[in-house]
Formats: sequence, C-alpha cells, structure tokens
Amino acid sequence: MIRERLNRLRALMREKGVDSYVVLSEDAHQSEYVAPYWRARAYMSGFTGSAGTLVVTGERAGLWTDGRYFLQAEAQLEGSGIELFRMGEPGVPAWLDWTIDQTPEGGCVGIDGRTLSAARARAMKQQWAQKGLRLFCHEELVGELWEDRPALPSEPIFALPDEMAGRSRREKLEDLRAHMKEKQADYYFIGSLESCAWLLNYRGRDVEGTPVAYAYVLAAADKTLLFLEPEKVPASLREELERDGVQVRSYHRIAADLAALQPGTILYDPASLSVLLEEALPADWKRREEKEVLLHCRAVKNETEQEHIREAHRKDGAVMVRFLRWIKENAGRGPMREDEAAARLDHMREEQPGSLGISFDTIAGYGPNGAIIHYHAEPGEGAPLAARGFLLVDSGGQYLEGTTDITRTIALGELTPEEKQAYTLVLKGHIALAAAVFREGTTGPRLDILARQPLWERGMDYKHGTGHGVGFVLSVHEGPQNIGPSNNTVPLEPGMVISDEPGYYEAGQFGVRIENLVLVREREKTAWGRFLEMETLTLCPYEREAIDTALLTPEERAWINAYHRRVREELSPRLEGEDLRFLEQATEEI
Amino acid sequence: MIRERLNRLRALMREKGVDSYVVLSEDAHQSEYVAPYWRARAYMSGFTGSAGTLVVTGERAGLWTDGRYFLQAEAQLEGSGIELFRMGEPGVPAWLDWTIDQTPEGGCVGIDGRTLSAARARAMKQQWAQKGLRLFCHEELVGELWEDRPALPSEPIFALPDEMAGRSRREKLEDLRAHMKEKQADYYFIGSLESCAWLLNYRGRDVEGTPVAYAYVLAAADKTLLFLEPEKVPASLREELERDGVQVRSYHRIAADLAALQPGTILYDPASLSVLLEEALPADWKRREEKEVLLHCRAVKNETEQEHIREAHRKDGAVMVRFLRWIKENAGRGPMREDEAAARLDHMREEQPGSLGISFDTIAGYGPNGAIIHYHAEPGEGAPLAARGFLLVDSGGQYLEGTTDITRTIALGELTPEEKQAYTLVLKGHIALAAAVFREGTTGPRLDILARQPLWERGMDYKHGTGHGVGFVLSVHEGPQNIGPSNNTVPLEPGMVISDEPGYYEAGQFGVRIENLVLVREREKTAWGRFLEMETLTLCPYEREAIDTALLTPEERAWINAYHRRVREELSPRLEGEDLRFLEQATEEI
Repeated sequence: MIRERLNRLRALMREKGVDSYVVLSEDAHQSEYVAPYWRARAYMSGFTGSAGTLVVTGERAGLWTDGRYFLQAEAQLEGSGIELFRMGEPGVPAWLDWTIDQTPEGGCVGIDGRTLSAARARAMKQQWAQKGLRLFCHEELVGELWEDRPALPSEPIFALPDEMAGRSRREKLEDLRAHMKEKQADYYFIGSLESCAWLLNYRGRDVEGTPVAYAYVLAAADKTLLFLEPEKVPASLREELERDGVQVRSYHRIAADLAALQPGTILYDPASLSVLLEEALPADWKRREEKEVLLHCRAVKNETEQEHIREAHRKDGAVMVRFLRWIKENAGRGPMREDEAAARLDHMREEQPGSLGISFDTIAGYGPNGAIIHYHAEPGEGAPLAARGFLLVDSGGQYLEGTTDITRTIALGELTPEEKQAYTLVLKGHIALAAAVFREGTTGPRLDILARQPLWERGMDYKHGTGHGVGFVLSVHEGPQNIGPSNNTVPLEPGMVISDEPGYYEAGQFGVRIENLVLVREREKTAWGRFLEMETLTLCPYEREAIDTALLTPEERAWINAYHRRVREELSPRLEGEDLRFLEQATEEI
Repeated sequence: MIRERLNRLRALMREKGVDSYVVLSEDAHQSEYVAPYWRARAYMSGFTGSAGTLVVTGERAGLWTDGRYFLQAEAQLEGSGIELFRMGEPGVPAWLDWTIDQTPEGGCVGIDGRTLSAARARAMKQQWAQKGLRLFCHEELVGELWEDRPALPSEPIFALPDEMAGRSRREKLEDLRAHMKEKQADYYFIGSLESCAWLLNYRGRDVEGTPVAYAYVLAAADKTLLFLEPEKVPASLREELERDGVQVRSYHRIAADLAALQPGTILYDPASLSVLLEEALPADWKRREEKEVLLHCRAVKNETEQEHIREAHRKDGAVMVRFLRWIKENAGRGPMREDEAAARLDHMREEQPGSLGISFDTIAGYGPNGAIIHYHAEPGEGAPLAARGFLLVDSGGQYLEGTTDITRTIALGELTPEEKQAYTLVLKGHIALAAAVFREGTTGPRLDILARQPLWERGMDYKHGTGHGVGFVLSVHEGPQNIGPSNNTVPLEPGMVISDEPGYYEAGQFGVRIENLVLVREREKTAWGRFLEMETLTLCPYEREAIDTALLTPEERAWINAYHRRVREELSPRLEGEDLRFLEQATEEI
C-alpha cells in the first residue's frame, strides 16, 4: 500500500517537475500534535509517530525520526522500501543535507507550503543556494492523491473562565499591547494554536489530546482579530469576546482580511508562521520578527493556574492508584492485552469530573514493548500481559484544572535482577533531578546530568530528553524550556512546569521510565542570589518491589519515603476500600 | 596619577575628534596574557587584573571586569574617578552598550586597532550602525601619552624537540595542509601566539608565564612563513625550520610581505586577527573564515604530551608538598607576608630542572584576601600571615614537560566552623566533578552543576567558572572547552586537559578554592556509546584538618583516601626526610 502511494506520488512529482518531495509532520501552525487532516507524513509512509520527516526522490525514500521512535519506525516501515534514518546516530545525515545531496543541481524540492514555517524555508533556501535548488510549495502533492483525507475539524470551542485562567483575556491583551508598544509594532501575529487559546482564554477540541482549535490571532492597538471558523464559537463566548474587543473572522479568509487592514508594522515569529502566510502579508507592511512572546508567558504559570494544576494532579493521582491496583490484581490472571489496559486507564480518566479527555495516546508497553519509547498498540493489537516483568505506562489527562503527564513502570510480578537494577538507577536519576537546587539563570541542559549520572556510571543511557514543558490545559509538550542534551538557553523560572522522566531501555527485553511533573519554585534568596528548586506535582507511588534498596543512598531512601507520605496524605481522602488499602501498602516506608 | 592620565587622554581625544575611547586588555593576537608593552589598560586605569575594559568619554570613565576581579578592581580604582561596572551583575550594561549610549549620534569611538579583532570590529559596527558611530582605530592615543612604555620583548625562542612534542613540525604542517586542501584554501593565517608556537614546535619568552613569542604564521602549499623577529631565532633552530620549509620573516613587515605574495584564497579566524591586519590583506585575495583549527588540535593532547604532562605534575606536586610543609611550619612563627610565601613557592618551582618559570602570577591570599579571587600582592605589600585561618594559594609552573595550575587552600592553624564547612562543600563539588562519568559529546557546561550542587543546596555559590583548558607548555588558560555557566558547545574529548576548581568566597573573611587539573580519558565503550571520565593529573594532598568529615558521603571519603594514596605513591620517591614524613601524615586515611 505504501509502495503504491509512493509510486503515485512519484508520478505526480514527474508531472509537476519536482525532483524531491518532503512531507513534514507539522500542520499550518507548526503544532506537534495535529488533526487527522494534517497527517500526510503518516499517510505516505505508514509511520505514525508524532515526529518524523519523509523525503521521496525519484529512486529513494527516507524517513527521519528520533531515538524515541527508532523501534516503532523500524516495524512500521518494514516492506515499504522507505529507508530509516536514525537522527542523532553517528554518520546519519540531516534530512535536508540528504535531500540537497539527492536532488540534481538546479533541481526542484517540493513541500506543502502550509506546513513549512517561514523560518525553516529561509534556512533551507540559504543552505541549498549554492546548488541552485528551487522550492515548490504552493501545491500539496500528497493532498492530490489522498482520496479519503479527513476534513478539518469543526468542534465548538469553549471559554476558560477567569477563575480558572487566573488572568482575564482583557488583562492578557493589555500586556500584549504594552509589549507591542514597547516594540513599536502596530500588529502582533500569533500562529501557535496554544498561544491563541491561552491569550483569549478559550479552549477547543480540534486536536486529540490538546484542547486547541485551528485559529490565528492578529492583535492591533484598537482590536483583536481571531481567525477561527465562526460556527465553532458559541454565542455566549462570542459576546464575551466582542466585549473584550475581539472580532471573530473566518479561519480560511485570513489572507484577504489582512490585505484589507491599514498598513502598519507587524511583529511575528517566523518559526510559527507558514511560508505561504508570510507571503500573504501585505507588501506595504513593515515586518519585524521576534521569538513569540506568549511562549514564555504560557510557560510561567500564574498562582491560580498553579493551584488548579495541583488539583488536576490529585485527581489524576487517584486515577493512577486505582489503575495500579486493578492492573496488578488482574494482569496475568486472565487474558488481558496492553491496549485493554490502556483503554481501561483512559476510561477511568475520562470519567473524572472536569475531564477533557486524555492528553496524548497512552503508551502501555509490556516487556520488550516497554523498550519502544513511544509505543502505542492499536485496539485489539496489544501484546498479552503476564504476571511477571514490567508494564511501562506513560499517560496523562486533560482536565479543566490542568494537563497531566505521568509514567509509571509497573511490576506485574517477578522481576529479573536486571529489571530491578535498571528501575533503581532510573529512580536515582529521577530523584536527583527532583531534589535539585539551582541558582536562578540555570538552564535545563545544565541539570540533565543529574538524571543521567547513575546510568552513565554503569555505561547505560537513554536516548531521549529528560524533561519537557507542559501547558496549562494545553499541549502536553511545550517550550521554551527543556531538560536534556540540547543547546537550549532558556533559564528555568519559578512557575514553569517541566517533566522529570529519565528511562532505560533494553531492546527486545524491557523498558523503564519514571516520570513526574515538577513545578519550579523559589527556595531561598541569599547573598549569592536566588535559588530555585522543584515542587513535585505528580502524586503516585513508585514501585516498591522494583527498588533495589542496596543501590540507594540514605538520602534517596528518605526522599522516597517523604514523597510516599505526601502521596498518601494527598490521595487518601479521594480513595476508599481496597484502593485506599492499596495506597497505604504502596506507600509504606522502604 | 590616573586622573591626570585620563585628562591627558581626554585632551588628545578632543584634538582627534574622538568622543569615546576604549582601552582593551588584549595584544595584537588577542592573547589573555600580554607583554608589558601591551598593558595600556592597566596604565590608563590602574587596574592590573588580566581581564578588563576601560572606556573613557569626555565626562566619565568606566572599567568593566568580571567576578574574579570585583574586589581587586574596587581597591585599585579608588580615587581614580573611574566607575566600576561589575560584569554579570543584574542591571550592569555591557561596555559596548554603555559606550554606544554615551557617545553622541554620529560620534566617534576610538580603539587601538591592533588590539581589536576583526570579528569584534564587525560586531561593534553592526551594533552601533543605527546610531551612525564611526570607528577610529589607526592611531593609538594611549601610546602617544605613555612616555616610559616598555619595549616589545626581544628574548630568543627555542625548539621543542619531537620527543617532547610527540608530533614533528613537518607532521603538523602536513595535517594543516590537508585541512587547507579540504577547505580549498591557498593560505592559512594564524594569529594566535600559542598556535604559532604549537604548530612549529618552538617556545618563546616574550610573555611572562606563557612561553610564546610575538609571531604570525602564514602557511601556503609550498612554504610556511613565520613572522617573528629573525634575531630572536637561534641559528640551529633557523636551520631546522628551513629544513621543514619554514622561512623566518620580520614580525613588523608582515603587511608588506603579504602584499608581495601570489594572490589566492586565505583562510583565517577573524577572532584572532586584528582589524588592521585584516585591512592589510591584499584586496585581490579571496577571504574565507573559520574558527581556527589549531585551537582544537592544541586542546587534544597526544600520548607523548600526556606522558610529559604527568611528569610535570609529579615535579610540581613535590614542590607543592615541600611548600606546604614549609608554610605550615613557619607561618605565624615569625614575620611572614603573603608575597614572601608566594616568592618562596615561585623560587622552589624555578629551581626545578626543566623549569621555564611560573605559569602565572602566584595568588597567595591570606584571610580576607583569599576572597579576592585573583588577588596578587606586590613584593613588600602582602598582608602578614598568622597561625590561624586559610591561606589560599593558586599557582602553577611551566616546565619543559608541561604546564601546571593548582590551588590549595592551606590551614595555617585553627579554623572556624564556617571555614571548615566551606572547605568541605567546595571539596565535595571538586570531587563530584573529578569523579564524573559522562557520555561522549557532553559539553563542559553540562558538568558544571556537579561542582556547584553542594554549595547551591545551602544557598552558596562562587562567581567564576569551574574549569578552563590548559595548554601544553603554553597558556595556562586555553579553549575551546570550558566548564562553567556558559553557552560553550564544545564537547569534552579524551586528551583534553581542564581544571576542576570550585571555590567559595566570604568577602572580608576568607576564601576557599581547590583546584586540580584533570585529563579527559575514555572509560568504556558500551552499547550505549563511549563513556568518558577524568584522570586527575595534579598530585598534592588536600587539607585534612579543614575537612568536616560529617559532611562527606562514604564514597567521597573513599575517593579522598584513594587520591591521597596515589599522591603518596607518586611523590614519595621525590621527597625525603621531613618532607616525606609530612607527605605521609598529610595523606593518612580520613
């Protein structure tokens, strides 16, 4: 099937004079998670991971993805004729370098211009300038052959009340206008779906797992234009928006609407604006660029958001404990597959009051599948669980109060010494990061070694980052901060939420990952500056039977016991009967 | 005196139409340590630290320096009318921003163009383009008023034999030519004094502490030109050089000599070439830029260099132990000043066979002076030592076998609990870094937290980097790697030498710094990659009586004991009598 699709694409490429065709993962807003309409890369390659790039030439086809997806991509690309390029491995070229290399001098590279950011387009053109390549981006070739392509979503949006958001739409718009004034801009353009929703205090249902809606925002001194299909906006919210000076316009007519505006200076982030939309900006406007300022605003949660997030984690923790008891009691006692376990957990989350569904596709990988970092079994296709070894479950919920993301590696029965060692080493790194104290100004990459040191000392590692930001009732992955082997230069700040998730994966055997979300907060101010620490948000016991206590320091043991006491205190009021007894046992002193 | 010099400079500025005059610390090669001829900033400001920038306008004068020098600069600038700008402190503008701000629209900024790198000149011009400032760089105003300016040095250079360098001049030149060929360059220009000396296997005596000579190298496919005053080259070395295709030319006539060469493509690093010399490159040459490739070659020591470096540290360690015994027996027993202690240590080093002198001005700071990070007392001006508290001694030697740099904080008698706590916390960080295991590809900034964590946990810190590269019989500070809160992106590699020197400074009371040099080496290769670790090169006991063992983990205690055993084994054969007995006591188990 994939081979046939590739052949049809190649025929189309020949017809249009395109030598190499690149299919990106993003939508027109550079989102990580996208509506089915945008899943052209999965359609063309069969690889369904959240990150990857497909390049098709007349003879060859290659897919680039990162360490989280190597095993999944290997399996999904099998027989397709598509070569897998493992990003970050020695000697593996970047997809753009390879594309430039494979395209003849003066040749043509096609990409859907909606999915190509203006920033990336510029960088690409610069990189291939010497070879004289051309960019073909006004037609989408995959769309022409994708017959049953899903439509763009049309779900209604809903308001996030001030008492949830902590800051009113009007206040946020005032802040943005003050910023525009400082930067001498007449317009501020926002391409990120999360930023649109955050700024105007609404949420949507267009993207599974991420409560956003397809939209753009253009803020001006006297009004704000929200480009979002008007039929998706309930009347009451529309009134609210109008009261706050926000006019709703058609999402699809943005280019025409921009052209009708008074010329002025526009400020935008070329990283979240498509090359096509940048071209559509009226020629007589002055353009200025900056990293989108709302990214940082969203990342630093206000006190109200923080309070709600804590509540979301209490809800989510109670769900997790009930799930842990259920899975431990049932796995191996009768037929049960990974996908059934995941479905049960998803269902438990969705039953919670205030649930907006799950925050991403639940990963439930048993045994060797736990080593596939972003494993996901389709319904009916999961591996059967037995009463031994590890089930790695990485999951999260969207609640009106906040977004959660938690990984627990669950012992379904007897464990090998290797499994216990790996679990304990990962836990040691997880604790070291959770307990870190750092001076204001410290970036995430500078903390990363704390989580890896116990593994590195034994020649072990994991091929993914250690922490990502998490939105407030928004994307489960958000910037600008991160923790990992990157060159990220954003200091961690009080109010930022970030995950703490080291892991270890023994291909073909088992996987371990332990993930909590933490909130950066102030610890103390001294003559030497302001020092920060992490408040652990996630509330769920670790796996006592997987811990090799001989590998723990007294401080680590005390940390685990203190965390377990807190988990018990916070979750006890929300559990009863067998679940409560399970919680009490699971949080006993080690 | 400083006020009068500033007034004379201002008169000259008015005469030349210069609104702001900037005096940098560097020489024409962007060296950190320079010959006295180049110390214009010290002459004009009175501040003698190794790093700092003076800016003089019609009304104001400011000096910018970093955290190492805040206390020293405060003292030395007193009464001069020069404002101190503490770099890195909140709200302190960069000197260039301040200069741009203080200079009138369309005004003129003067700088000695020899000391201004081409890269910096470009960045400056870009930054002030909007304000229309002009650069005045062909005349050096300080030179015009500096009557007793020292001459440029005229010491002879000497050859570093192949058995010391590990790679012959011819081999190094072949490597460089292969690189030039790959980059399609006809000429490679080298402005760094250390790179010239390293490439052509000679050393010089032009700069105190750094065995280099003022020189440039221009490599071509068929010959190499060494611009170094010919009278400084001994006849035998000159013959050797000529046999290897190296022609010696006058340092001062480089511009004229370049003009006489065949036009071609020249590759150079604009960061180590002055703006004046860049202007002097013939107009018909094609210019290409890159980070100077020898910087990396120098940083990764070959096996022969590594062997010699180990020997240099054994020599230096024996000196240090003899010094430690002497100072502990004598301080407080009779009159002794900091500068006398430093002079004694310098003398002991210089007496060693193969000594090329000290590698930088010895820092010997007693009590409160230990908190002045780069303290240096002039002869006769040091504070008296008593039999209590800490004497911080940061010193190093240049030997034919290598360059050393060591800091020991010495207990001269009774210590306060604060002193012991600080010493132990600094030692814990020092050990954590020395014992670090890290995956290939890890940069220095990612290790920095290991050294700071014990301090940060208590709201303490130190305002300097944790580690700098060290040359092979070259500068005691060299790149490209470092460890610290920087954005350095150079991975640590086997063969790199770097310092491990956390500290703690309680202004007005005491300072602690503990520094060893370490060599990065391979630890193991596993399925997860290549893992690296540090081999400690420096051999000298820590201060047993300053360690609060209650603060140590069992692992830290074991690390100290293992290190002390090694120090005893390696140094015992080089010591005798009382010194040997001192070593044995100082390295007893804790």
